Order: sequence, then structure tokens, then C-alpha cells
Amino acid sequence: MTEELPNPLEAFFDPSSIAIVGASGNMEKWGFGVLSQFVTKDPDVEVYPINPNKNEILGMKTYKSIKEVPDGIDLVIIVVSKEAIPDIVESCKNKDVENILIITAGFAEVGEEEREFQEEIVKIAHEGKTRIAGPNSMGHVNVHADLYTTRLMPRLKKGGISIISQSGTFGIHIIRNGSEEGLGFSKYISTGNEADYKFEDYVEYMGKDPDTDIIVGYIEGLRNGRKFLDVAREVTKEKPIFVLKVGRTEEGSEAIDSHTGAMAGENSVYKGMFRQSGVLQARNMPELIGAVKIYNLQPLPKGKGVGILTGGGGFGCLTTDEAIEHGLEVPSLSQGTMGRLNDILPPRWSRGNPVDMAAAYGIKTYECLSALLNDENFDIIIAAQCLGMSSIMNLSDLVPSDYGEEAEKRAKKYKEIERENFEEILSLMKESNKTVVGIGTPGIANAEDELTKKIRKEIPMFVSPSVAVGAISLLVEYHEYLSENYPRSLK
Amino acid sequence: MTEELPNPLEAFFDPSSIAIVGASGNMEKWGFGVLSQFVTKDPDVEVYPINPNKNEILGMKTYKSIKEVPDGIDLVIIVVSKEAIPDIVESCKNKDVENILIITAGFAEVGEEEREFQEEIVKIAHEGKTRIAGPNSMGHVNVHADLYTTRLMPRLKKGGISIISQSGTFGIHIIRNGSEEGLGFSKYISTGNEADYKFEDYVEYMGKDPDTDIIVGYIEGLRNGRKFLDVAREVTKEKPIFVLKVGRTEEGSEAIDSHTGAMAGENSVYKGMFRQSGVLQARNMPELIGAVKIYNLQPLPKGKGVGILTGGGGFGCLTTDEAIEHGLEVPSLSQGTMGRLNDILPPRWSRGNPVDMAAAYGIKTYECLSALLNDENFDIIIAAQCLGMSSIMNLSDLVPSDYGEEAEKRAKKYKEIERENFEEILSLMKESNKTVVGIGTPGIANAEDELTKKIRKEIPMFVSPSVAVGAISLLVEYHEYLSENYPRSLK
Repeated sequence: MTEELPNPLEAFFDPSSIAIVGASGNMEKWGFGVLSQFVTKDPDVEVYPINPNKNEILGMKTYKSIKEVPDGIDLVIIVVSKEAIPDIVESCKNKDVENILIITAGFAEVGEEEREFQEEIVKIAHEGKTRIAGPNSMGHVNVHADLYTTRLMPRLKKGGISIISQSGTFGIHIIRNGSEEGLGFSKYISTGNEADYKFEDYVEYMGKDPDTDIIVGYIEGLRNGRKFLDVAREVTKEKPIFVLKVGRTEEGSEAIDSHTGAMAGENSVYKGMFRQSGVLQARNMPELIGAVKIYNLQPLPKGKGVGILTGGGGFGCLTTDEAIEHGLEVPSLSQGTMGRLNDILPPRWSRGNPVDMAAAYGIKTYECLSALLNDENFDIIIAAQCLGMSSIMNLSDLVPSDYGEEAEKRAKKYKEIERENFEEILSLMKESNKTVVGIGTPGIANAEDELTKKIRKEIPMFVSPSVAVGAISLLVEYHEYLSENYPRSLK
Repeated sequence: MTEELPNPLEAFFDPSSIAIVGASGNMEKWGFGVLSQFVTKDPDVEVYPINPNKNEILGMKTYKSIKEVPDGIDLVIIVVSKEAIPDIVESCKNKDVENILIITAGFAEVGEEEREFQEEIVKIAHEGKTRIAGPNSMGHVNVHADLYTTRLMPRLKKGGISIISQSGTFGIHIIRNGSEEGLGFSKYISTGNEADYKFEDYVEYMGKDPDTDIIVGYIEGLRNGRKFLDVAREVTKEKPIFVLKVGRTEEGSEAIDSHTGAMAGENSVYKGMFRQSGVLQARNMPELIGAVKIYNLQPLPKGKGVGILTGGGGFGCLTTDEAIEHGLEVPSLSQGTMGRLNDILPPRWSRGNPVDMAAAYGIKTYECLSALLNDENFDIIIAAQCLGMSSIMNLSDLVPSDYGEEAEKRAKKYKEIERENFEEILSLMKESNKTVVGIGTPGIANAEDELTKKIRKEIPMFVSPSVAVGAISLLVEYHEYLSENYPRSLK
């Protein structure tokens, strides 16, 4: 049946006109939260608040019903209690409404009777060629159009990441985690019960959306696995899809049933489906954000070979373990690199991969990094506890006061050397087309000086080796999938 | 041989007098870094800078050699190049030196010849009944005595956590991560090559140290497994030992060889040893810090039963999966709790564990939490996306300006309700003796308002469910170990 229906998700994410059924002046209500976003931010859209008991809300003319609205309506947002919804949907039939977003909850996630009621509503909508998002949705966002129908969502930085989430609060969690890492977003949808538009419909749309470069999904259960497989296979040729799948255990599946009424299904079935369609399944939230962060800044790893450069032996050992445990490789240095590093470093260096610079880190880092970038054995370089080190070279509060000036001079000198070295290496890094990732200790990795911020704009930085390596391994998987199946889509 | 030697680690961590051989006025040198800590911080200790070429460094009278120092010396710190060290150690013989800390590197981690040289030095020290820490150490710290022989280490908050690390930089990484989480520290030692004092000696000492409540270890390889087993078994009766073990893979083991010259050994042997002695092996750094953070604030879990309370269904599903995957259990609600929650919550709640409060979170959180604390089915309560919610209730920047005052009033009201509810639940939480852990989204979990900070002082908060659950599972393991082996040591 869906085949004959229009799929106007473009208008859903960028409507010209919106009616809010249940618009309210009461701060405790969703109808206040949604409407006030339009009042304060004034995006380029006609807004019609609907409330039979008011003439004006938040200074806006209010309409008694959908019928009363003089013009056509692209998107109707419904936040009133569920009993009223069939009539409202019925009244949309004559207004050329393309989409309805139902925030109201209490449908399929509650029980069988409510599921039938939900299906009834969809039937009415489809009679009028109208599509439904939700119910039980927590709203959607188009950052580029400044459109927010969510509550408690901070304004987001513009970017290419779009989120499709089967949990409203967890979707916000993903966004807030990403924002903390400086990521920018394009679209967000809390899919709710997916009575009509399904997870896979949004994937299909995001795949074609020119503002979306990366798709992130939180999945409890897919309603149409076959379609997901077909759609995802198309989309991943061009854009990565990273997902977090819950309901991996029996107990988790039961929890899902009462959350969105989805069927979690067999974990192994999902694993197979993701593998077949190049969808990347993160093991946990930090890994998910980490993979997006790396993909956002760096090219895909062309293989599994990891070269590790470090100012601290422990970081080298730990990162090596993590790499091997995640299915990557830590190959030997080529003879040429060995010779080059022997020239650069004092005799105490580790003479192998991981390259432990010992006491020479800070000064020799970028020379060594350039040697590793030139080594054919490596597809990925992890620079651990050696980038941005000049951010902590200012010892002025650790030295006697009459040494303060000298300490500051010294710090400035190190900063200058690191800045020059970093700028020199940038073009080599880009030419080499290798994946470069940094690891550093809090206070260095997240230092707020200009140079460290500049480094982080080019090289994704992590505090935890396990998170960094887990994220890299997802990207390696993506490159392997593409080279096996669609070698032409690789640049 | 070690049996006949003194084990004056107490004096090592709290010396009355220190000589620094290689004290320097050159900011690039370790001998400057170490000495300047004493000049600027002035801990309660006699300091003798040793440098044959100077009469004064950093305003302090300087001695030509150890022999020249008029009094006895508790601790000699050596930062000069290795060739000079045998003579220096020889000269310690007549000064009743208890301990020597050798920062200098280039010994067993480099090769066989250097290993023999290292052993030679230890032999000389033992003839004078002097013990050696290092070589290749990056110093030690006693936060309670304000003693820092490290470089680039920020001043730490006092607390009960002591760190024993076979990597200097990674030890600092653990400390900086812990500091970010607000943890307080007692002692730190970068063990270096462990030519004399071994990892297990420090564990034994920390076990008896009244300022140490929790021991954290970074291990590449243990020199004396038998002793570690005996010592750890004693210590874990009273205090937990959390470790991160690297060299779990062949490649990781090779990296270790060139780092500290330790033998990583078979992973399975270590696993067995840790299990037999109640030592808790973290899977990664965030889990290690997480477990310490929970133990620091909450009682040990008395069993595996997790009750999950959440304001966001997705958090409930994900936390359930994580709990089951980490070997915990997510039991049903008792009938009494089911009834109580039916009374508290609107009909839309999940009617099971996880308890998804749906729209009622924020207002009903603490009532529900109290119901779960009273349910015998649970040993652990995870409160996800529901604590500190009043920190984001201030919508004043999201509403039209003439609603600003009302928005602030409303925010204040919520804050007041949450404060009262939280204070009410505190005594119940303590009586129940259950382990309570919070999960929240960035912006809520780490909010800086007074109330949220107060909540975090009682309930450890996490952003990632996987990290929280991994950390809890380590503590469950510890409780199981103690109940099986030393039920009396459980309060």
C-alpha cells in the first residue's frame, strides 16, 4: 500500500507551513514548547496555532481547528490526547496536508487495543494521501532550516550528521554527546512507534538529502528488514550508516516491547543484515560518536595496518593490545623508516612499532610522524600522548618565581616549534591519504589553547585508547565492505 | 636475598631528608623539575641539592657529593647519566641512606648488557642495606605529605586512591582521568624497571598504608607472581585492587619488552592469578576509573540484581542489554513494587523493570527510586536520565521574553521539589545499603548547579551506560570473591 502513497519527507523536514494542534500558553505542555520555538526563533515558515479555546497564544493568532486555517498546510503537528486524533486527521483530508507528526503517546507501546487504534488513524491519513510520523515521537529537527519541534533540545551546530532514533531521549543523548565533541548536525527524527513512516523510510530520505553526509541510527527493532537491507545497501555506497542496536539480549528485547512496541528480533539476524548492507554497528555510545568524529575529519583507512607513535611507552603497549583485539594489525617498521627514526631519535627509542620516542617527544614528534606517514606498511597512524604537548610546557606555576619569565619564554618557544612542525606536516598528511588519530591525556587532548584547538580541527583526539581503536575498527570495516562490493565508490 | 633486607617504603613515601643528585638550574633537565618542586612547595623535608659544579641552585646551598652532606639522608634521588650511578650508590653506603630513586633510563629496557649493569648497581646498594626504586622511574608522589618527585604532574586532591604504575606517562593518564572525575589521591609510584623494589612490594606497602583505601595498578608484567598472589590475597581482604593489564596480545607483549624490559607472560596465567586473589581486572581505562568512582561513594553490590529507573525508554533498553552482557541480572519487580509504582505513575509507565516513568520523570523520580530501594529483588539501582533533571528545566532562553519570569519561577519550583525529594531519599539510600549509580546525558550528568553537584557527591554519575555497567560488574565480582572466601571481611 505504501507504494501508491507519496513520500514527502523533504516537505516534512523543510515545510513552508505548519499547524500545531494543541498549541498552548501553559508552560507545562508540549504545545507550549513546540510553539514557543517558532515564536522565539522565527524560522522561514507559516505557523498556525490550533486551539479551540483561545484567540491568541504567545502573541499569535490562534485557529479553532484545521478547517479554519485559510491556506494549505504542509505539516500538522499533533500534541493533544489520543482520543481526539482520528477527527483531526480526518479534517486534514481537505487541506492537502502532506505530513502529520504525532507527538502524543499511548498507542502500540501500551497494548493490542491501542495498536489497532493507531492503525485506524493511519488508515484515515492514507485515505487523504497524508503520511504520519510517530506517534510517540519526541519531534524532529532540521538544523539548516532552524526547524525544531523537540523540547529541551539545545540549538545545534550546522553540519552533515543526521540522526534517526527509535528513542527520543536517547536521540538527544547522541546529539548532546556529539555536540560536546564539536560535531555539527543536519537532521534529527525521533521515529516513535513508526505507525506509517518507518526507520527505513528516513534512511532512504537521508541517503538522498544533500545536507546529510553521515547517518546515525539508534535501533530497537526494524519493521521491514527487507526494505532496510535494500535501502541501506544503496545508501552506504555513498554515505556511512552507523548504528547502535539494542535488544541484543532477551531481557533487552522485553524492555523494548513496552517502549515503542517494536520487535527486537534475533541479534544474529541483525548482525547479518548489517554486515550485508555495509551498516556499521557500534558496540557502545562512545565508539559510535568516536567513529563519526574520525569519519568527519579523516579519510577512511585503506587497510588494517596501524603505526603507533607515542611519547609514553604505556600508551604504546595498551594501544597495541587494543588494535590486535579489535582485529587490526601492528606491522613492523619498514627498513627505511627504521633508518630514518634512528637518525631522528636518541638511541633509547623503542626501535620498532609502536615507536616510543622516549624523552624526545614534543620536539621530534612531527618528524617521526612524517616518517610513519611515508611508510607503506601503515594505513592508520595513532599518535598517542605526543600531539599538543606544548600546551603543558608552561611550568611557570611550578618553578620559583624568579624563573617565571624564563619558563614563559621556554613555553613560547616550544609552542612556536610545535606550530611550525604541525603546519609543515599538514600537507603531507593530506597527500598520504592515511587515517591519523590522536590520543592524549585530559589536560592535553582537551587543552583550550589556539594551537591544540587547531590540531583537533584536523586530527580527531581521544582520551581513551579503547574508544579510539574501537572507532577506527568500524571505519576499517566500512572500507573493506566498499572495496569488496563497490570498489568504484572509493576515491 | 630480599628477605634479609629492610623494606623502608614508609620512609620512601614520607622521607625526612632528600638528596637530589643531578640537581640543576637548567630548566630542560629533570634535576631542575624535581628540585624546583621543593623550592616552590616547601614540604616538611630537608633537601640537599647535589651538583659538583655549583655552589647554589634555585637559591639553595648545593653540595659537591653525597659524602659532603653533613647529616644522614633518607632518600637519594638520582637523575644523572647512568655511568656515574655505581659510584654514587657506593657513596650512599656510609650515609645510612634507606632508599634510592633512580629516574635515569637506559637499563634493562635497552638490552642484556644494560640489564647486567642495572643488577650491578642493585648489588652495591644491597651491600649498604639500601633499597632502590626504578631505574627508569618517572618519580613518585605522596599527596598527603605534599611530596612530588614527578614532572608535569598537577597538584592533586587528597584522597584514598593510590596508584602503582609500570608506565610513568600512563600513570599520569590514570591520575588525570581520575582528577577530572573529582577523585582524590594518596600515593603514586612510577615503578620503572623494578630492579629492586617490585610491583608487589608496593602493593604490600599500600595494603598497610592507613592513607590508602583503594589500590590501582597498571601492569605490563610481574616479576614475582607467587609473591604478588600472596600479597594481593591479603590486601584484597581489606581494600580493592583494580588493575589494567597490558600485553594481552603477542604484539602488545613485544612492545612491553622495549618499554620496561618486563615479561608480559601468558594472558590466561594473569587472569587466573587475578581471579584467585580477588584482584579486579578492568577491560579498559574508562571502566577502571568508573569502578574506583563507584567504590569511592557507594557500598559494594550485594548481588547481581539490577533495578533500572529511567526517564527515557531507550536508556532502559540499552542499560538492560549492557547489564545482561556483563553477567548481571535484570529481575522482575516484586508485586509490592508493581503496586506502589501503579499508584505513583500515570498508566503509560512500562509496568516492569526497567521502570520507564515516561512523561512522569523529574517529578516522580525519587518516589520511584524509593520503591526500587525497598524491593528485595534488587542489589543495584541504576537511575538513568532522571537525576538532576531540574538542571535543564530553565527554559528562559527558549520562551518568548515576556514568559521569561514565569519560566524562571517554574525552574525554581522544580529545583526546590528535586532538592527536597533528594534530601528525603538520602537516608533511605544509606539504610538500604544498595549500590546506586546514575547515568545522564551531557549537560545534565555534568551540570554545574549546586543541586546536581550535591547529587554527584552521593551518587556516581556516568554519561555512558556501557562504562557504568562495566564498572559495576567489577564491584559485583569483588563482592562475590569476598563472600566466597572471606565472608567476615564484609560489613
